[in-house]
Amino acid sequence: MTATDLVLSPGTSAPPLLSRLAVSAAAVEGGVMSNAEMFTWLAERQAEQQQHVERVPFTALRGWRFDNRTGDLRHDSGRFFSVRGLTVKSDFGPVRSWQQPIIQQPEIGILGIALRDFDGVPHLLMQAKSEPGNVNGVQLSPTVQATKSNYTRVHGGSAVPYLDAFRRPDPGRVVADVLQSEQGSWFLHKRNRNMIVEVGPEVRAGDDFAWLTLGQVNLLMRHDNVVNMDARTVLSCLPDWRGADDGPAGDAGWSLHPDREIRTWITRRRAEHEVVVAPIPLAQTNGWLRTPHAVTHCNGLYFDVVAVDVSSRGREVPAWTQPLLEPRGMGVAALFVKRIDGVPHVLLRARAEPGFLDVVELGPTVQCVPENYEHLPSEDRPPYLAEALERRAGARYDVVLSEEGGRFRNAQSHYMIVETEREFPAVSDEFRWLTLRQLDELLRYSHHLNVQARTLVAALRTL
Amino acid sequence: MTATDLVLSPGTSAPPLLSRLAVSAAAVEGGVMSNAEMFTWLAERQAEQQQHVERVPFTALRGWRFDNRTGDLRHDSGRFFSVRGLTVKSDFGPVRSWQQPIIQQPEIGILGIALRDFDGVPHLLMQAKSEPGNVNGVQLSPTVQATKSNYTRVHGGSAVPYLDAFRRPDPGRVVADVLQSEQGSWFLHKRNRNMIVEVGPEVRAGDDFAWLTLGQVNLLMRHDNVVNMDARTVLSCLPDWRGADDGPAGDAGWSLHPDREIRTWITRRRAEHEVVVAPIPLAQTNGWLRTPHAVTHCNGLYFDVVAVDVSSRGREVPAWTQPLLEPRGMGVAALFVKRIDGVPHVLLRARAEPGFLDVVELGPTVQCVPENYEHLPSEDRPPYLAEALERRAGARYDVVLSEEGGRFRNAQSHYMIVETEREFPAVSDEFRWLTLRQLDELLRYSHHLNVQARTLVAALRTL
Repeated sequence: MTATDLVLSPGTSAPPLLSRLAVSAAAVEGGVMSNAEMFTWLAERQAEQQQHVERVPFTALRGWRFDNRTGDLRHDSGRFFSVRGLTVKSDFGPVRSWQQPIIQQPEIGILGIALRDFDGVPHLLMQAKSEPGNVNGVQLSPTVQATKSNYTRVHGGSAVPYLDAFRRPDPGRVVADVLQSEQGSWFLHKRNRNMIVEVGPEVRAGDDFAWLTLGQVNLLMRHDNVVNMDARTVLSCLPDWRGADDGPAGDAGWSLHPDREIRTWITRRRAEHEVVVAPIPLAQTNGWLRTPHAVTHCNGLYFDVVAVDVSSRGREVPAWTQPLLEPRGMGVAALFVKRIDGVPHVLLRARAEPGFLDVVELGPTVQCVPENYEHLPSEDRPPYLAEALERRAGARYDVVLSEEGGRFRNAQSHYMIVETEREFPAVSDEFRWLTLRQLDELLRYSHHLNVQARTLVAALRTL
Repeated sequence: MTATDLVLSPGTSAPPLLSRLAVSAAAVEGGVMSNAEMFTWLAERQAEQQQHVERVPFTALRGWRFDNRTGDLRHDSGRFFSVRGLTVKSDFGPVRSWQQPIIQQPEIGILGIALRDFDGVPHLLMQAKSEPGNVNGVQLSPTVQATKSNYTRVHGGSAVPYLDAFRRPDPGRVVADVLQSEQGSWFLHKRNRNMIVEVGPEVRAGDDFAWLTLGQVNLLMRHDNVVNMDARTVLSCLPDWRGADDGPAGDAGWSLHPDREIRTWITRRRAEHEVVVAPIPLAQTNGWLRTPHAVTHCNGLYFDVVAVDVSSRGREVPAWTQPLLEPRGMGVAALFVKRIDGVPHVLLRARAEPGFLDVVELGPTVQCVPENYEHLPSEDRPPYLAEALERRAGARYDVVLSEEGGRFRNAQSHYMIVETEREFPAVSDEFRWLTLRQLDELLRYSHHLNVQARTLVAALRTL
């Protein structure tokens, strides 16, 4: 099928969205920009936005300080985010109560991608954006990636480009608009608005921006550390364009568990778990120490809170300092895929991360930093971790991707999609096999798939 | 259409759920029990469960006390619920910051109705249950109405009947299972699991229970203070049986705003409002006083927190004392209904109640206690309140209903459905006209319709 076929199909003035997205995904050689030009553009932006990022002691932070009373790390303006303590008590899992630092950022930001047709093929307006926590400087970001502090200009920077397209869009031009959570182990109740909005020819790409087809973005998704977390989560909220020419993606599609069963499973996991979390003063967080250079776990596990000094010319603000959360060790996020009666299903785990707003969200089959489990007996290691690592060589997707570089330093994981042909039953009530259509449906509503699962949904659509 | 037609329809062994519910709704004269028997049963239960409820000073509470340090009112076991303070700051509305007492009950309970076929007609297992806050003792309740403290027997009472049918049901027999919020002005982050589960002939009705058709329950919904809040919210989570013989209720149904537009509106209302709530010690709640008999607002508005002594023989525990929240004044909850291009739409308001887990849920067109607004200038009174009161005489539904009598004392509202023929535009971005199919879809997912709107959905289906 070509874009022309669609435009000329009788009885429709415009081809339906899913067909148009399918055309964009099939355009792997690009349209506005060739692939060669795209890689050149990324390299140029990399050079242009070069940042100098240096670890500094907390005393070198400007505008940030540890509260005298609580020890919480906060910005003098009270905006941006703060690092507080959290006490967690749950009624399941190998470790049932602990304390930890956590990032609190109550504002809801906008992560938005603009979509515009060129010669009948939708293109995504992607941004080359450096973040201080990225291992490699510039990564491919959404059109807009703005906290409320950003766009209300708390830090006195320049206006966020393209923001207007997302703040009051024509409702008929909104492809997706949904609140989604971010890392529930590192953020307390954080979520962002994930938006995709169709725009017209009045929107043009500035120097740090490029119009790429979905096929090109999918190509970049196969490269280590190119597509950033914010872009990945927005991409996952696109309706699934594969296997459907129009209408919602196969409402009648068969699945191992009917939709109602999946909903009751999620409800039950949320209702039956008791996860009690309460913010506490960072200074009273047991098991964590504050040194001049880091807030760190006494066994050297999990993560550190550190400070960096950033100088750059590509950012809104020429030079600044800020805290970042730096995980210890490389993560693993693996999704098992299996055809059941010919229909692809993925194995999701109902996870209760302490920072989730609604107790439980669905995560990948495996999601962990293996080092954090080495001190535990082998039966307490994450289910399927050993199988995921064994089968890595044959994985259909195996790419190193970073979490958000504006909050996390060197936070990388091996994202893997592993096809399992032989019997891989769900080992417990925490796991269920879902179809891609079911993922699509859950992604229309907030707080069902966690951010790692959403990255793997975006990855799955590149295969 | 009759039940026999459905059973004999070719190619299906069992008629689809929606058709069966339609048959049950059409059975207005009942099946297992005639309407005359039903009213007799209710009257008998009323006599049998007679409770003596008396206002007492706080010092007469047994097992409950005000914390010395915070002034919070708590049970010695740490379970059930507590009354704390809340500080609220928002960026919209006539009153943008205030403090108030609020009930905190972090456990998720079960509200469940069992569904069983008699001669091919589904019947609901309803309970006659007295609650100390009810103005009239016994009301019609779900099969199971249990907090976690209830069913884990913190208060040493007898086991909750029928609970097993809801705790581990056969997934294929679950008709609905969804977490839904309760009063966001009185509860902090409270939600319950709303369940409807099909059961077999092994489930029989005890003395306090009766098998009623949907038609009979709908009949009782037209009587003042008969169907309790818990029953109403569970009923609203039934899939809408009207206008559809099988399959999901008219996926292709036209609506003024497409589903995607409604979702983006909800997302935007949630993202753009800043509602910052934080628990504070009850003793430090500005504007509220603690007397020996009540925690009360200094202007006599909103509500009181009071204590009662209850003696009864029908309850799990023979006699007890407990706090209750007693609102000042009678509420109004009105839903405007209008045919747009022949399709019925209802006017909902995006409400930010401080106790909501996710900032905003959709409420009725009007929801307020009019007295609480009398001290404000007329432009700050709730939109459409005057129209609702003017049109009360011609309302299609106008019934006084109570909120949950286990937490609220004499908490009654005029629930009204008002058909508007002439032009009633949505006055601001807070309002939208939605179809009944759209309500149905939103009710499958948690935290979209508030408890007052859910009562009105249940009421709407009785018309």
